[in-house]
Amino acid sequence: MSPGANVLPTQLHRDYGAIRSATLALCAPLTVEDHVVQTMADVSPPKWHLAHTTWFFETFVLGEFLPSYRPVQPQYRKLFNSYYVSVGAPYPRHERGLLSRPTLAEVLEYRRLVDAGLLEFLDTAVAADNPEVQRRIVLGLQHEQQHQELLLMDIKHIFASNFPQPLYQRGASRPRAAAPAARWLEHEGGLHEFGHSGSGFAYDNESPRHRAFLLPFALASRLTTNGEYLAFIQDRGYARPDLWLADGWNTAASQGWQAPLYWLQEDGLWYEFTLAGRRPLDLDEPVVHLSFFEAEAFARWRGARLPSEYEWELAARSLPVAGNFAEEALFHPRPAAAEGLAQMFGDVWEPTRSDYAPYPGYRAPAGALGEYNGKFMSGQIVLRGGSCVTPRSHVRATYRNFFYLQQRWSFQGVRLARNLEG
Amino acid sequence: MSPGANVLPTQLHRDYGAIRSATLALCAPLTVEDHVVQTMADVSPPKWHLAHTTWFFETFVLGEFLPSYRPVQPQYRKLFNSYYVSVGAPYPRHERGLLSRPTLAEVLEYRRLVDAGLLEFLDTAVAADNPEVQRRIVLGLQHEQQHQELLLMDIKHIFASNFPQPLYQRGASRPRAAAPAARWLEHEGGLHEFGHSGSGFAYDNESPRHRAFLLPFALASRLTTNGEYLAFIQDRGYARPDLWLADGWNTAASQGWQAPLYWLQEDGLWYEFTLAGRRPLDLDEPVVHLSFFEAEAFARWRGARLPSEYEWELAARSLPVAGNFAEEALFHPRPAAAEGLAQMFGDVWEPTRSDYAPYPGYRAPAGALGEYNGKFMSGQIVLRGGSCVTPRSHVRATYRNFFYLQQRWSFQGVRLARNLEG
Amino acid sequence: MSPGANVLPTQLHRDYGAIRSATLALCAPLTVEDHVVQTMADVSPPKWHLAHTTWFFETFVLGEFLPSYRPVQPQYRKLFNSYYVSVGAPYPRHERGLLSRPTLAEVLEYRRLVDAGLLEFLDTAVAADNPEVQRRIVLGLQHEQQHQELLLMDIKHIFASNFPQPLYQRGASRPRAAAPAARWLEHEGGLHEFGHSGSGFAYDNESPRHRAFLLPFALASRLTTNGEYLAFIQDRGYARPDLWLADGWNTAASQGWQAPLYWLQEDGLWYEFTLAGRRPLDLDEPVVHLSFFEAEAFARWRGARLPSEYEWELAARSLPVAGNFAEEALFHPRPAAAEGLAQMFGDVWEPTRSDYAPYPGYRAPAGALGEYNGKFMSGQIVLRGGSCVTPRSHVRATYRNFFYLQQRWSFQGVRLARNLEG
Amino acid sequence: MSPGANVLPTQLHRDYGAIRSATLALCAPLTVEDHVVQTMADVSPPKWHLAHTTWFFETFVLGEFLPSYRPVQPQYRKLFNSYYVSVGAPYPRHERGLLSRPTLAEVLEYRRLVDAGLLEFLDTAVAADNPEVQRRIVLGLQHEQQHQELLLMDIKHIFASNFPQPLYQRGASRPRAAAPAARWLEHEGGLHEFGHSGSGFAYDNESPRHRAFLLPFALASRLTTNGEYLAFIQDRGYARPDLWLADGWNTAASQGWQAPLYWLQEDGLWYEFTLAGRRPLDLDEPVVHLSFFEAEAFARWRGARLPSEYEWELAARSLPVAGNFAEEALFHPRPAAAEGLAQMFGDVWEPTRSDYAPYPGYRAPAGALGEYNGKFMSGQIVLRGGSCVTPRSHVRATYRNFFYLQQRWSFQGVRLARNLEG
Repeated sequence: MSPGANVLPTQLHRDYGAIRSATLALCAPLTVEDHVVQTMADVSPPKWHLAHTTWFFETFVLGEFLPSYRPVQPQYRKLFNSYYVSVGAPYPRHERGLLSRPTLAEVLEYRRLVDAGLLEFLDTAVAADNPEVQRRIVLGLQHEQQHQELLLMDIKHIFASNFPQPLYQRGASRPRAAAPAARWLEHEGGLHEFGHSGSGFAYDNESPRHRAFLLPFALASRLTTNGEYLAFIQDRGYARPDLWLADGWNTAASQGWQAPLYWLQEDGLWYEFTLAGRRPLDLDEPVVHLSFFEAEAFARWRGARLPSEYEWELAARSLPVAGNFAEEALFHPRPAAAEGLAQMFGDVWEPTRSDYAPYPGYRAPAGALGEYNGKFMSGQIVLRGGSCVTPRSHVRATYRNFFYLQQRWSFQGVRLARNLEG
Repeated sequence: MSPGANVLPTQLHRDYGAIRSATLALCAPLTVEDHVVQTMADVSPPKWHLAHTTWFFETFVLGEFLPSYRPVQPQYRKLFNSYYVSVGAPYPRHERGLLSRPTLAEVLEYRRLVDAGLLEFLDTAVAADNPEVQRRIVLGLQHEQQHQELLLMDIKHIFASNFPQPLYQRGASRPRAAAPAARWLEHEGGLHEFGHSGSGFAYDNESPRHRAFLLPFALASRLTTNGEYLAFIQDRGYARPDLWLADGWNTAASQGWQAPLYWLQEDGLWYEFTLAGRRPLDLDEPVVHLSFFEAEAFARWRGARLPSEYEWELAARSLPVAGNFAEEALFHPRPAAAEGLAQMFGDVWEPTRSDYAPYPGYRAPAGALGEYNGKFMSGQIVLRGGSCVTPRSHVRATYRNFFYLQQRWSFQGVRLARNLEG
Repeated sequence: MSPGANVLPTQLHRDYGAIRSATLALCAPLTVEDHVVQTMADVSPPKWHLAHTTWFFETFVLGEFLPSYRPVQPQYRKLFNSYYVSVGAPYPRHERGLLSRPTLAEVLEYRRLVDAGLLEFLDTAVAADNPEVQRRIVLGLQHEQQHQELLLMDIKHIFASNFPQPLYQRGASRPRAAAPAARWLEHEGGLHEFGHSGSGFAYDNESPRHRAFLLPFALASRLTTNGEYLAFIQDRGYARPDLWLADGWNTAASQGWQAPLYWLQEDGLWYEFTLAGRRPLDLDEPVVHLSFFEAEAFARWRGARLPSEYEWELAARSLPVAGNFAEEALFHPRPAAAEGLAQMFGDVWEPTRSDYAPYPGYRAPAGALGEYNGKFMSGQIVLRGGSCVTPRSHVRATYRNFFYLQQRWSFQGVRLARNLEG
Repeated sequence: MSPGANVLPTQLHRDYGAIRSATLALCAPLTVEDHVVQTMADVSPPKWHLAHTTWFFETFVLGEFLPSYRPVQPQYRKLFNSYYVSVGAPYPRHERGLLSRPTLAEVLEYRRLVDAGLLEFLDTAVAADNPEVQRRIVLGLQHEQQHQELLLMDIKHIFASNFPQPLYQRGASRPRAAAPAARWLEHEGGLHEFGHSGSGFAYDNESPRHRAFLLPFALASRLTTNGEYLAFIQDRGYARPDLWLADGWNTAASQGWQAPLYWLQEDGLWYEFTLAGRRPLDLDEPVVHLSFFEAEAFARWRGARLPSEYEWELAARSLPVAGNFAEEALFHPRPAAAEGLAQMFGDVWEPTRSDYAPYPGYRAPAGALGEYNGKFMSGQIVLRGGSCVTPRSHVRATYRNFFYLQQRWSFQGVRLARNLEG
């Protein structure tokens, strides 16, 4: 992780309080029962997210830098460890939904105790003098923001699995607008630098900054809409193997995919489950909740392709990080409004044709936190730009998110690209 | 189901109130979270038991006999149907733990509404004049008692799956006593009648009463103890294929069985998880939570065998139905005290060498309730006598319980039998 | 195993030669390639059968009684061990089709060597004076006959899995006849003796002879025909859960059963694959290749049931062991011809409602051969009477065959039974 | 596919004869039985390879360009289709080992018929005037060469699965030599062109030629040896999760990997199964039969990394395509001999850190042959350089082979790379 510039202690206090309480606010609409279930292996019970993010501060800050620290409950070390094998064998991920204990109340008490301990520790000379402490806390807060997004992804899956499906939001306003026609915006390519530079926070996987050469290319001016994706379905896109990667075709067949996750057809009409409940499909909204495989097949059907992560970054880096993020509390993508290159940030994660691999010269940090990113660099693809469930302050033009090629519960959609004669 | 003699309406009122509230009392020690999880496919979330037993009365009494009845929530018809395909496709059993909704509070409200409706209905002329209504309610109460036992089985599994493991009971007294030496009590065999007769309630699977011929045999005077079973383990019982049925050996190997479920060895000492927490193994208590396969292998190791269900019934039917049942609130077997034939009722279910098959002349009742017992008559074995988590009023000498040969979460143990030269 | 009366050495010589060469004759129509494949876990490559039956004589006769004996190839001890764990860990059953070696020629050479050794050994004083040697050889020949049946079952499955499907027999005559109407033949029941008695060979599982009491019952005068089973299908028998045991219904659904194994519908017409190739379904022939679950559901649909193994034995034991056996070389059931109780022996195995359990007083023999039968006594049902692929001399009225409830590749059909008021 | 320069008909005749008969020669040491089995899903029976390569010419040449052509056997169209869904649903890959028919003799006859037909067709005006016909035949021969390598991979797996393991080669000479010390050979990087250019044959996945920018890097002067890899094992390389990608660690754990495929430790000594039988591990030979995951973990343990495919190509393209290829008939890697950059071609495939993705501007060809390469471009990595079981004429510096990250039965090893300060 790039540590980022020195953060003032008062700023850290303020950020810590704001980000930690934002997590709790996301859980406010949930019942106790909603905090417990795990509706598929990728989902974690909300209770687990609340505990795991706390475990992160307890393990990597208090437990390491505060000699007198005694863990709130020794068994949490294993239960709430996600994947840091250096810290000991984690509790099996797919069994998180088997645990009724600790209760939600006990988890909230755990958060209170660790928060109090951490804020107290922040004021000590030990913490003030040790830049590693600050780095860890900044990382812990970035980590917490990632789990805020995961919480919303998981809550959506949990709610969609219930009968009747509960509403997470009531009366959320729904922006309606006709999406402008998509245009191809051309870029010259050439030799450019990519990756993180400068003093702000960035993850280790965004470094080192390095040069790469791009051919001329064009990017679609906006995201693919539901209407455009529906045309793919109506053209038998899910029934034509020539449009698909072989692994994608096999996955779609074995999973019975016929449409994006959360789409439902009833009496010939299409509906979509959202955090504000089931709604008729809005053809102008960006399509969301499809896998890389589906995005890639759709692009082929359109005679286009997905962008590389470098193409995306080159096009995006002159734009402000602004758009439909979690702060909007819409939690759903909305139709493009702007002319020009629109929706690069927010709305939906944009899958690229780039596999998630180390940048040239990448080295994972030493110690347990070296497991944060590097060990996942195989078999996944890079996604860029953030989504409507990502906190805005969490995203950058160099930010690299990653998912497996078949995952769909993340808020991801499609941005088309194509080659230019060059 | 044998309807049983006519039940007085006031008695039915009283029974209904007592049995339904006993179910709630069993859940009193649980947190909300404990009601939600499903720790293996055989386990149901306690919340589901509370709802399903209510669904039974709603579906088979109110919904069928009260023309004006409107269901509390139409989707419950599917969600809380266990296996009655005549009533529609049930929600998948192994996914009960994915549902956070309805919440516990909503389920309790469901119970209150159905209870009120049913008690009101009981006072109507329709109910009073229709013996089938009474039969259904009596059956619903027997069914509720079965789920009381399942609740305790499932709670034990849920608690055992947590870290740390919660206590269901605090400060439960623990009777300690040296088990008397086991003796062989001989029986002559011959031609006898078996199965239900008379006017009390019995399930359809206990009928018709019929004759069967038995060879002379001997039954052990008491249940097998932990100490006796430990000797089997120490003699490498789990490592000797010659002691096992082939399917048992394969199951034990693939599941990694080395001891009964809930036994744990730590630093050379054996412990057992109980509803009152983890305790050092008491060698005088009856062994519990082993499969038919383990019981059968143990019997072979002892040069004995398991009894047939007829042998058990012949020996038990002159005894009073008395023993360590759920009413003792011990929820754990206790050492034998009596001389003579002891522990035939209560403590642990006694697996027999009889497969669960229809009695000669058996016919399943017509309609959805015909699915209650008959369709499970393959691949399972019969167990007799009830256990420390069975309500005493639920058990008879002719009562036939049944489990698959590999199941262990039920409170079942071992009673040995052997042949006599005859 | 009941040893049977003393067998004259010359008779043993003659039987050995006849039965061993009959096995080879069964493989004559196969290509080398047909000897190698394993089309499902229950099937063994024909090459394996040829080797395993030889292994039996090598291991249990030559290896045990001939001190100077040296195994043909030490690795065969493991490769061709079916399930005798006392003899060492067998090679995994479901991987038999992965072995290209030993080749068929090597296996045939193995047979020649062991046959020569065994016949030579038979003439020694050691063999002549030791009745256990004779018992072992008699058992080995019975075992060989069981594998003759398995060979035909497995060849049928192998051929049915090929495209195009080869013919095992060319120009086999096909007896056509109208099946006589089925009648109910009544039996009085009462207390009778069952199981093996006397001096002929019998397996251990047929003993000890013992008494059992039967209620009055009726048996169908002939086997169920294809036409009768087709009516079940046409009445939506595979789509009505009320007709099925729960485990049967789930198995049928997960396996996609819509008809017996080897039935195929094309352009509205029904065909059946036989060892003489695909043929239009003959409605008068006995139905074959259905599981216990299907037989049981069919019986319920007919308002009848399957017989118990005692009922079958009581009805059959006065009949001669005659019928459509492997010696006819028809290898397919044929329409009933006789009036009276027909087709009790031969044609198809008749599944009973009796689970495969030890008879009262049963004890498995000591030593490795004790594994022959006893360890399979759980989870299976008893079938009686032999089939068109069973050698006639292998069958008795007391013979107990056994299969799992879902198996279908055995030549098994349906004989109906019903209760009589009594 | 780049068509390659026009090939003279006489040359095509000669190549066709030579390559097709080379395939048969590879099967000469096999028994009939060895042609039938499929020892894991990735393996195909040798019989299938012989038929499938024939099917390729029948389907894509004779069937498309010879109007009067009638297929040898219509069912082969499905049975021997590997994955061309445009040609109809292929027979399931993992069930190829269930087919005993067609027999080997029938497959060889199929080859003879198609070969005769094709050579006759080659002489017609239709073939001579249509460059697409020539392109198809050239492609068919390249395809045949790929299957020659697959045959050797599969035969090795089949032989290794037998007991005792047969020898494919007898008396193969075994070159022994001390491997020279490995050195780091430095490369400057910069902007270069990659991919196929010019007039020879190349696959579509090597095009289009395009520029890419590389940082300075170093490559190891030779392949990693068994001795070096053994040091990784002895340093507990398979037990240290910090060395592994997360997916690699999970795969290794679930598969129980402790060493490369075909390594075996006995009494403290290491052996390796080769096509010439089991041999003591030669520490100077290149390590072979390890997955990308293992290669990647080994590189991390050495403080190095795997090269990118561009780095490899840049270093290799000035070298002649010479080395230990299938023509040597050694079928096993041999110790490095040369100084300088050694073993870039032949010996073992060299896994890169590059995922198998389309080159910028790649377009799959139209029609069924468009399925040849493009649809596999996800989830795999690129390997370069060919191996000791690859025909030399099949390989180029731009050749891109690809395997899944966990596959090990291919002859793949490790070439290390590292970053240079730049």
